[in-house]
Amino acid sequence: MTGQVEARLKELGVSIPTPAVPVANYVGFVKAGNLVFVSGQVTLKDGKIEYVGKVGQEFTVEQGKDAAKLCAINIVAQLKAATGGDLDRVKRIVKLGGFVNSTPDFAQQPEVINGASDFMVAVFGDKGRHARAAVSAGALPRGVAVEIDCVAEVE
Amino acid sequence: MTGQVEARLKELGVSIPTPAVPVANYVGFVKAGNLVFVSGQVTLKDGKIEYVGKVGQEFTVEQGKDAAKLCAINIVAQLKAATGGDLDRVKRIVKLGGFVNSTPDFAQQPEVINGASDFMVAVFGDKGRHARAAVSAGALPRGVAVEIDCVAEVE
Amino acid sequence: MTGQVEARLKELGVSIPTPAVPVANYVGFVKAGNLVFVSGQVTLKDGKIEYVGKVGQEFTVEQGKDAAKLCAINIVAQLKAATGGDLDRVKRIVKLGGFVNSTPDFAQQPEVINGASDFMVAVFGDKGRHARAAVSAGALPRGVAVEIDCVAEVE
Repeated sequence: MTGQVEARLKELGVSIPTPAVPVANYVGFVKAGNLVFVSGQVTLKDGKIEYVGKVGQEFTVEQGKDAAKLCAINIVAQLKAATGGDLDRVKRIVKLGGFVNSTPDFAQQPEVINGASDFMVAVFGDKGRHARAAVSAGALPRGVAVEIDCVAEVE
Repeated sequence: MTGQVEARLKELGVSIPTPAVPVANYVGFVKAGNLVFVSGQVTLKDGKIEYVGKVGQEFTVEQGKDAAKLCAINIVAQLKAATGGDLDRVKRIVKLGGFVNSTPDFAQQPEVINGASDFMVAVFGDKGRHARAAVSAGALPRGVAVEIDCVAEVE
Repeated sequence: MTGQVEARLKELGVSIPTPAVPVANYVGFVKAGNLVFVSGQVTLKDGKIEYVGKVGQEFTVEQGKDAAKLCAINIVAQLKAATGGDLDRVKRIVKLGGFVNSTPDFAQQPEVINGASDFMVAVFGDKGRHARAAVSAGALPRGVAVEIDCVAEVE
């Protein structure tokens, strides 16, 4: 039986990748009680880093938004692993922490991170509506345009 | 009957605004168990953005501190909504995450974020004493000087 | 009786300092249920700030890693206080939030924050494996090279 969330992902034409396994002494997610803390996810696709550069310089806001969506897809991949493969067990996307790699005078972080917020609501419906912070970082790992971490509640 | 926290706010001469409703696919706060995760609040007052600029450039530390207090007022507005209007149900301000929009060599983030920390203790007493991180962002939404998010515990 | 974690710290030759007590209206940690939220810890050693400067400019990645380890030692000091002196009550290091003070094009935040991640696993074993975000800040308090906050689960 396919779950509701998986059915929605299929409708959206999004396939959820195998989650990235960190090559260091940290992990993709940790469960504490009913909360899942997901590590900061970046713009990794098919094992390759995409969107290397700063929004407002190498990338437009629209491209930044696509980069944020890619981070969100990787968050969902971690949540799939955290729920034993059953994304219907995600009770709520609680919080997204969005970091944009931008020029010092960039001011459209919310528009960029909307790429992730919109995706969460498209996938999870009202359960996908989250608290969020959207700021620019001074710089990001490998030079990626966006990094997003997440707290979710699971059943 | 007026609650203790509301009485304290009256003494302080602070009126708590109607919380900002995000115009996107995220929300002002999410409750997960007894924890409330509040979205990053900025320097919004009476529907207008204030304190646009960088601390250490357009703004002094003292002005940054006032900006942080304004963010804290907006956090309390979200907590009021999260507690059904009864701020006495706030058991503890658990964590503030403070982001300062500053020049690259600015080093007084703690003094700036104290504007929020002092306000929380003025309003909630010992329940207002929180863990906190205070860092500079690379830039902030709409160019505001300060953004602060919050985790609180409620009854 | 010495705890397992204390024995491990002795093997590692690390002595855990008395935790820093903030000189403001916030605290080193707050417990909410079984979660401990630890304030952002910086490169404080024997009451003095060390590692003042930016990684990629004043400091190499290797030095940044040492700075991150020092932050982690100060996190463990807070956790020791949070567990009434018994670090064996730490059930899991849930999340590290790592902020690097770097130049705008720095891209090795993960390598820097590994200094903290490696220390957590050295001290706590598998319980030390955490979710994490590693980003650059625009600047950090007192000009330190690294600041790290933490969420831990305790018994």
